[in-house]
Amino acid sequence: MLFQPKTDEMLLVLSQVVRASQHLQALPPYRELDAELTQQLVEEAGKFVGAVIAPLNRIGDEIGARFKDGQVTMAPGFRAAYQAFWQAGWPALAAATEDGGQGLPIVLEVMLFEMLNAANHGWTMAPDLLHGAYECIKHHASDALKKRYLPKLASGEWLATMCLTEPQAGSDLGLVKTRAVPQGDGSYQISGTKIFISGGEHDLSDNIVHLVLARLPDSPPGSKGLSLFLVPKFMPDGARSAVYCERIEEKMGLHGSPTCVLRFEAASGAIIGQPGRGLQAMFVMMNSARLHVAMQGIGLLEAAWQKADAYAQERRQMRAPGRKTTDPSGADLIKEHPAMRRILDTQRAWIDGGRVIAYRTAVELDIARHHPDAARRDAALRWCSLTTPVLKAAFTQQAFYGSSECLQVFGGHGYVRESGIEQHVRDARVTMIYEGSNEIQAIDLLLRKVLPDGAGAFGLWLDDLRSDLDPPQPIDAQVLTRLTELQAHADRISLAAKSDDTLAHWLADDFLRAVALCLLDWSFAQIAKTPEAATLRWQAPAQALQRWIMPELAMRLAIINAASCCADAASSATKTHS
Amino acid sequence: MLFQPKTDEMLLVLSQVVRASQHLQALPPYRELDAELTQQLVEEAGKFVGAVIAPLNRIGDEIGARFKDGQVTMAPGFRAAYQAFWQAGWPALAAATEDGGQGLPIVLEVMLFEMLNAANHGWTMAPDLLHGAYECIKHHASDALKKRYLPKLASGEWLATMCLTEPQAGSDLGLVKTRAVPQGDGSYQISGTKIFISGGEHDLSDNIVHLVLARLPDSPPGSKGLSLFLVPKFMPDGARSAVYCERIEEKMGLHGSPTCVLRFEAASGAIIGQPGRGLQAMFVMMNSARLHVAMQGIGLLEAAWQKADAYAQERRQMRAPGRKTTDPSGADLIKEHPAMRRILDTQRAWIDGGRVIAYRTAVELDIARHHPDAARRDAALRWCSLTTPVLKAAFTQQAFYGSSECLQVFGGHGYVRESGIEQHVRDARVTMIYEGSNEIQAIDLLLRKVLPDGAGAFGLWLDDLRSDLDPPQPIDAQVLTRLTELQAHADRISLAAKSDDTLAHWLADDFLRAVALCLLDWSFAQIAKTPEAATLRWQAPAQALQRWIMPELAMRLAIINAASCCADAASSATKTHS
Repeated sequence: MLFQPKTDEMLLVLSQVVRASQHLQALPPYRELDAELTQQLVEEAGKFVGAVIAPLNRIGDEIGARFKDGQVTMAPGFRAAYQAFWQAGWPALAAATEDGGQGLPIVLEVMLFEMLNAANHGWTMAPDLLHGAYECIKHHASDALKKRYLPKLASGEWLATMCLTEPQAGSDLGLVKTRAVPQGDGSYQISGTKIFISGGEHDLSDNIVHLVLARLPDSPPGSKGLSLFLVPKFMPDGARSAVYCERIEEKMGLHGSPTCVLRFEAASGAIIGQPGRGLQAMFVMMNSARLHVAMQGIGLLEAAWQKADAYAQERRQMRAPGRKTTDPSGADLIKEHPAMRRILDTQRAWIDGGRVIAYRTAVELDIARHHPDAARRDAALRWCSLTTPVLKAAFTQQAFYGSSECLQVFGGHGYVRESGIEQHVRDARVTMIYEGSNEIQAIDLLLRKVLPDGAGAFGLWLDDLRSDLDPPQPIDAQVLTRLTELQAHADRISLAAKSDDTLAHWLADDFLRAVALCLLDWSFAQIAKTPEAATLRWQAPAQALQRWIMPELAMRLAIINAASCCADAASSATKTHS
Repeated sequence: MLFQPKTDEMLLVLSQVVRASQHLQALPPYRELDAELTQQLVEEAGKFVGAVIAPLNRIGDEIGARFKDGQVTMAPGFRAAYQAFWQAGWPALAAATEDGGQGLPIVLEVMLFEMLNAANHGWTMAPDLLHGAYECIKHHASDALKKRYLPKLASGEWLATMCLTEPQAGSDLGLVKTRAVPQGDGSYQISGTKIFISGGEHDLSDNIVHLVLARLPDSPPGSKGLSLFLVPKFMPDGARSAVYCERIEEKMGLHGSPTCVLRFEAASGAIIGQPGRGLQAMFVMMNSARLHVAMQGIGLLEAAWQKADAYAQERRQMRAPGRKTTDPSGADLIKEHPAMRRILDTQRAWIDGGRVIAYRTAVELDIARHHPDAARRDAALRWCSLTTPVLKAAFTQQAFYGSSECLQVFGGHGYVRESGIEQHVRDARVTMIYEGSNEIQAIDLLLRKVLPDGAGAFGLWLDDLRSDLDPPQPIDAQVLTRLTELQAHADRISLAAKSDDTLAHWLADDFLRAVALCLLDWSFAQIAKTPEAATLRWQAPAQALQRWIMPELAMRLAIINAASCCADAASSATKTHS
C-alpha cells in the first residue's frame, strides 16, 4: 500500500492541541493568517504528496540513483516530480516574500516535510537541505551573493548541499582539511575531498549550490580555523565548476538519494560570512535542520505504522484471547492479539506525541523570528535549543526501532521487500547518524545546554512546560510530578559532574531519553484537553503511553541516580584519602 | 574486516564457566571425552570457519542466490564450501555413530554453528536445518526411510528443509491447506504451495529432503489434522519429483540463502510418524532448532561487535573527557569516548552472558539425552523447555538492536555497505521472526510453560539456577534476590491471570525479558567464579551489565506489577458490582 497523508489528524494536533493560531496571531506577519487557509494549504500539500511523491518511493529504493562518468541519474520520475514540486511553489512556503517566497510560518513547512519524508525519504533528501542553505545565505552572505542565489533557493529552482564531512572528519569537524586559497579578486580556490554529500550531484535541478567548509591558508587548527564558501555546480557564466562527483555510496537504504564523494579541484568559490566563522554560519540553521531530521523520523514511523495497521486489519492468525470470532477460518484478525495491539498503540503514541512536540517547536521557531517581545523571543530560542536535540535523537531512534516493531506485525512477510515495510527500517537507520549522531545530540543537550549554567535555562524551560499544565487534572498533576523528578535529576548530575568530568558523558543518553519521555507525557496531557481525547482513536495511544512507554522513565532516572551516587562516593573517597 | 572465531574465549566459557566436562563426564557416551580433544575440535572448527566460510559472507549478500527457470544457483563459492564442509565431517558432529556420525555432544555442534552463523548467516541457513530433519526422521520415520535417509543427512551429503508455512498459515499452522492423498501402496501424493522455505532449492548438495506438513483427506480441521511427509527432490530411482520452486523472495537481507516458494504437484511422498501427529513429530526438534536460532543471534552480534571494536581502536574523533591524547590529530580513539565504550561493553555483556546460557542449555540437551538418572533427565528437559524460548527471543532481538548499536560506532561509515556492518543488521532482522516469532516465544514461555502448573516447574528451574549460586558472595546474593523477585512476579501474574484471560498475553514479552535479564545476571555470577573475571576483558562487560542492562529488570517488573494490580482491581470491581 502507498502512504497517504492523514491531514485531518495532523491539523487536529496543529489547531486543537498546539493551538497554533493563538501563538501565530501574536506575530505581526501572521496576524491575518487564516485557519481556513492553513487547512486548505495542508490538505493541498497532502494531495500533492500522496499523488506525486508517494508513488515514487519503491522505484527510488529499487532502481535508486545511478552513477556513471561523474553524472548521477535519479530514479525514473524523480526529476519530473521535483520540477512539479518547485513550480507549484512548495519549497517557497516559509521563505521571505522579498525573496519570492510565500512568507508562511515554519510550522507549515515542517508539516509539509513530515508528509514528504513519510511518502519518500530518498526523494525528499534534496529539497530538505534547501531551507538551511537559504537561511545561511540570507543571514551571512554578501548582497551580491544574496541577489544571485536567494531567489533561486527560495523558489527551489536550484538545489543546495552542505559539504562538511571528510574521510578523517566526521563528528569532529575540527579535523577538516579542505583548503581555500584567496585569489586576490575576492574569490577563492577550494581544494579537497568531501564525503557523504547528500544530493552532491543529480539531475533534479539545473544547478546545485554547494556550501563548503574549508580552511584558509593562515587559519588556526581546529574548528576555529574553518570558513564557509559557496561553490556552484555551474558558474554565473554557465561554465561547469571544478567540482567532481567521484562516486556515490552503496548504502543500507535511502537508495533514492545519491550520497556523493565530491572532489573540489581548485574550484572557484565565494566566502560566506567572516573568515574563521564558518561553523557559526552553518550553525544558524542547526535547530531548523535538526527539526527537519526529527520530521523524517516521525514521517517514517507514520508510514510504517500505516502499513502495519492496514495489515493487522486484514490478516487473520489464531484465536485471540477473550474473542469469539465468527470468521470461517476460526482465526482472529491480528489486531486483536495483545502483542500486536501493544506494538500498534505504542508506536501510535510516539507519532502523536511527536507531532505535538515538533509542531509546537516549529511554532516556537516562528515566535523566535517574529515575536515583538524580546523576552518571548528568548524563551522561544531556549525552547528550540533544548527541545531540538531531544526531538532529533528520540524520534530518529523511534523511527528505526518503531518501524522494526511495525515490521514484526507482518511476520515473515515483513522481511520480504514486497511488503514495503522493510524499506522504512533501512531508510530510517541513517537518521540516527547524520545531522549530528544521536550521541552527539545527547552531549549537546546535557553538556552544552543544561550543565553550563547549572540547569538554569533548563529550569526555565521546565517552567514553560508547566505553564501549559493544569494541576487539578490528575493527568497534568502526574506530568508535573515527573517534571519535578526530572529537574531534581538534572540538579543531581550537575552536582556530581563537578567531581567527575566523565560522568555527564556516560549519562547523556539516559538524560536525553528521560527528557524525551517527559515531553511525550506532557504532549498527551495537551491532547487530553481536546474533546477528541475521549475517543478510542486517542485513548488507545494515551493508555499505551502510560502502560508501556512511561515505565522507562523510572529506569533512566535510576541509572542516573546510581551513577551520580557512585560519582559522589568516589569523590568523597578521593577526598578522604588525600 | 573478516570475522575470525575467537575460540579461546568460547572455550573459556565452555570449560571454566559452564564446566562442561564435569557435566558431560556423568553421561555414559562421554565418560572418556577428553578436554584436549574438545579444544582441538573447536579450534579446528574455528580455522575452517575463518578460512573457508567467512570470506564468502560479502558475496553471499551482494550476488546472493539467483533464481532462473525453477533452478537456484547459489553465490559463487558456496557449493564448493559446502562440499568441503560435509566431506570434512562437520555436519556429522553430533549425529549418532550408528548413522555414520561422530556421536559428539550437542554443545560442540552448537559452538560450531555459533561460529558459522557469525561468519556467514546466509550460507549457514542450509546446514542449520540438518540436525532437525535428522532428529525428526530418527525418532519418527519407518525403518525403510531411516535406512535410506539417515546416513545421508547425518553426513550432510544431502540437505533438508522444513515445509510448514503457507500464504494463509504463518504462526497459525492450523490453517495449513496442503493435501496428502494416500495411494494405497503406502505412498502419498502431496499437493499445495509452501512459502518461506529456506533452502527449498539450491545447488549445494545433490539431493534435498523436504519435510512437509500436510492434511490427509479425512483429517479434522486445525492443527490436529496435520501429518508429516517426506518428499525428496530426487526419488530413489533418480527421477526428479514433482516439487517446483516458483520463485525466491527479495528480502531485506540474508541474500545468501534462497527463501523459496515451493509448489507440490501431486508429489510422491512418505509419511513420517502417525497420521494426525505431524506437529508432534516436528516439535521433537523444537528446543534444538530454537537454540540454533539463538546461536544465530549470538553469532551475528559477535561478528558485529568484532567489527565495531576494531573500528573503535583505529578511528580518532574529538578529545575524550579525562584524556590527554598525544596523537598529532589532537583527537582520541573513539573507544575512549564514554558513549562508544558503553555500546561496546554492553553488547559484549550480552554476548558473553549469552554464551554461558546457551552452552549450558546445550549441555542440558546432552544430559536430557544421555543421563542415567531419569530425574536428572527430567530436570534437564525442564531447563531446556524454559530457557530455550528465552534464548531465542532475547538473543535474536539483541542481534538486531545490538548490531545496530555496533553500526552506530561507525557513524556514517556504518550505513555504507563497504563497512560490512549493515549486512549483519539486515541479516539479523529475520531471526526475530522465524522459528516462532519472538512474540510466540514469549507466549510459549508464559502461557504454555509457566502458568499451566501455577509456576511450579518454573520454581523448580529457579532452584536449579540457585544451586549454582554461592550466597556469601555479594554478586551471587544479588542474583538470588532478583530470582526471588522474579518468582514473586510469576506468582503475581499467575494469580491475576485467573480473573483476566488476556492479562498474560499483554505481559508475556515483559515476563520473558525479565527472565532473560535474570539469566544474564546469573551467567555473570558464574563468570565471576573464574580467575579471568578480574581482568579488564571480563570486568568491563560485568560492570556494563550492572550499570546499563540490569536496570531494565525493575522496569519490566513494574510493568507486570501495574498491570497485575489493575487486573486484580478490575476483577474485584466486577465482583463488587455483580
